[in-house]
Amino acid sequence: MKPYCFANDTITDSKEASLHPLDIGLIRGYAIFDFFRTVGTHPLFLEDYLKRFTLSAEKAGLPLDYSRDELRDIIYQLIEKNDHKDGGIRMVLTGGISANHFLPARGQLFIFCEPLMLPSQEKYKNGVKLLSVDYVRPLPAIKTTNYTYPCWLSLDWKSQGAEDVVYHHDGRVSESSRSNIFLVKQGQIYTPQRDILWGITRKKVMELAGNISLSDFSLEDLLNADEVFISSTTKRILPITRIDEVQVGHGKPGPHTRKLMTDFLTMEIENAGAVKRN
Amino acid sequence: MKPYCFANDTITDSKEASLHPLDIGLIRGYAIFDFFRTVGTHPLFLEDYLKRFTLSAEKAGLPLDYSRDELRDIIYQLIEKNDHKDGGIRMVLTGGISANHFLPARGQLFIFCEPLMLPSQEKYKNGVKLLSVDYVRPLPAIKTTNYTYPCWLSLDWKSQGAEDVVYHHDGRVSESSRSNIFLVKQGQIYTPQRDILWGITRKKVMELAGNISLSDFSLEDLLNADEVFISSTTKRILPITRIDEVQVGHGKPGPHTRKLMTDFLTMEIENAGAVKRN
Repeated sequence: MKPYCFANDTITDSKEASLHPLDIGLIRGYAIFDFFRTVGTHPLFLEDYLKRFTLSAEKAGLPLDYSRDELRDIIYQLIEKNDHKDGGIRMVLTGGISANHFLPARGQLFIFCEPLMLPSQEKYKNGVKLLSVDYVRPLPAIKTTNYTYPCWLSLDWKSQGAEDVVYHHDGRVSESSRSNIFLVKQGQIYTPQRDILWGITRKKVMELAGNISLSDFSLEDLLNADEVFISSTTKRILPITRIDEVQVGHGKPGPHTRKLMTDFLTMEIENAGAVKRN
Repeated sequence: MKPYCFANDTITDSKEASLHPLDIGLIRGYAIFDFFRTVGTHPLFLEDYLKRFTLSAEKAGLPLDYSRDELRDIIYQLIEKNDHKDGGIRMVLTGGISANHFLPARGQLFIFCEPLMLPSQEKYKNGVKLLSVDYVRPLPAIKTTNYTYPCWLSLDWKSQGAEDVVYHHDGRVSESSRSNIFLVKQGQIYTPQRDILWGITRKKVMELAGNISLSDFSLEDLLNADEVFISSTTKRILPITRIDEVQVGHGKPGPHTRKLMTDFLTMEIENAGAVKRN
């Protein structure tokens, strides 16, 4: 993490930031967060993230003492003080100290600047593997910190050569643990719209591709797709070339995926550049 | 909370206890815990809880730097320093600061002494209401801090006059959000054994009743039961007299439930007394 963070209502030393352990953010896993990147020092798609974060707080019943304008101000101050280039920014709002240690209360806001860990060039070039898991997240539309299950699953991913999981339940694929998922079949791109987090990168992919079909599909559809890819803030667009022991399509990133990867990088650079020119 | 807690590997001021907010205990909701009571100053069924806590750590892939003997020592010191009578004790082990902010690492151990909030006498006398929710917990056999969904649901419980929820999925009832569940039909007691946390109080109820049938049942079975009750550390045995808008049995705690409530209180006192006599 970078030297300065926002904690206890002020910009302060990141190492000194602290949470009381009885906050239900810890003892009940009740907190919301969001995470975005800076391109150079430009916070990419910041307005989308601020909107989602404040909506998550509202849906989670957590009072947030800062408006979007105030959050934006703090974020720009942190970027400047940390000289935070090509990094990540994490906002967390905890559930607070609760009288019955359960009911959501009034929590703490933290904002940290972090180094980014993007996938390697090799992963973008060759694609990665997902493991299928029968699961569906509760409250997927709120960006909670509820990752207990996939964190536990991740203890075993590497030994199986996998990058992440794909959730499916009752015949429907929903998402990966921290990414949205897309399949391409006969030139048409599909992505689920139920039981998912509404990813900002997913939204940008939809803008770029123009004609994505929002529809349910099964794990079998995914295994029989021509191309599969996932999208997320920290992965951009990442090709999936294997699911469990099944090769997807030709086992290489396909043309639709590669075009979107390029288009997304262009969009990113244009977005940062457009802001600088203003 | 009481003045002294265990934090940062020492007995210290509870108010000063702190966790770095980037611990995955907060940012990914990855932590395990346990909670038990003291009867007078006697930690009730302590060995059962110590066993479950250390097993939870192991199953969660979290290194615990303290043996059961060392944990027991710390707990007795805390009880003495806090003069902790008829209270609760919470042990939490966090996921730690993780290099990729996801993979379980080496965390912090916290032990807090807390005042107890037992249900009112009125609730024991008349029973309480549960709301049915289609859900099943991931990793139920590990006592994780993953309560995001029921905490969110609890925002709405009171307005519906409910004490808690009962989870069912695919035709099977599993548990309440923090309690095990039992039904009585024609004199026989049933409790599920799949997709549940193996409650210590549940275990004691099984010892007391002697002939409980471990078998799946449906929400409909529950609604048609003669008696329903839940068991947990902080509730002991609590009669359920309404589920959603349906009255259970005669709408009053039934004879099997009342007998177990009494027997459990006796067991509790005997357990504390037996230790004192030794």
